Amino acid sequence: MVDILHRVGVKGATPAKVYEALTTVEGLAGWWTDDTKGTGDEVEGVVRFRFPPVGGFDMEVVALRPSERVTWRVVGGPDEWLGTTVDWELRQDGDYTIVLFKHEGWKEPVEFMHHCSTKWGTFLMSLKSLVETGEGAPAPRDVEISDWH
Amino acid sequence: MVDILHRVGVKGATPAKVYEALTTVEGLAGWWTDDTKGTGDEVEGVVRFRFPPVGGFDMEVVALRPSERVTWRVVGGPDEWLGTTVDWELRQDGDYTIVLFKHEGWKEPVEFMHHCSTKWGTFLMSLKSLVETGEGAPAPRDVEISDWH
Repeated sequence: MVDILHRVGVKGATPAKVYEALTTVEGLAGWWTDDTKGTGDEVEGVVRFRFPPVGGFDMEVVALRPSERVTWRVVGGPDEWLGTTVDWELRQDGDYTIVLFKHEGWKEPVEFMHHCSTKWGTFLMSLKSLVETGEGAPAPRDVEISDWH
Repeated sequence: MVDILHRVGVKGATPAKVYEALTTVEGLAGWWTDDTKGTGDEVEGVVRFRFPPVGGFDMEVVALRPSERVTWRVVGGPDEWLGTTVDWELRQDGDYTIVLFKHEGWKEPVEFMHHCSTKWGTFLMSLKSLVETGEGAPAPRDVEISDWH
């Protein structure tokens, strides 16, 4: 089984600030997609992320530890994503908040998974930018990486 | 075992152009690091990539198929990288050259691997930019993603 892994450091930020960007609709809409609705700050809450015109993802919050960890289960979206888990670990390290990211449970390392890995990287940079500067690059203003956008 | 996977599409480019950026010292220095020396266009050639002041990587070319595939084995660098394989597959798809990237053979999904995954993503975007615009973002002008740079 292959997982998608990433690590970024958000400079001059606290884990509480990054946690806010991962659990509030306003925060999530600031780095992933403008079209974000739902409840991200309660276990069993569901957040619906849409990327018009291509669809999107529904994430059920399965674990929360304020300023430390957020875990989602994918309950709606492309077949390859259904049942996978997205996990965020946060910690302070000097002047940085370190974000360890895992998207686990892919059945096969299909080409779409390669795409999602690179795309997650650009969205993590968007999250970093949002918290550092107040401005992220959520869809539809996200970084274009290929013909699959 | 966990691999690092990525996919980008280089717009308006041919696989031959991307292949050149993966096999010539000038091409490699244009997106990965200014400090690139060696032979990348012959099987058994070795390319030495340095990122002052932190070290670097020596890659032995183990397979080449012009405009289609480049495979390197890591023969020098950090312990976690030694013996791993970096593989590039290229193909034309409409107006894009699709680059499928794999960094395989990591023993453990350590935190450094998370970092390298995100960093590879930014360097693939640098490769894309180099071929599309003539300007990449190689070290020391590479995108800073964290305290580990």
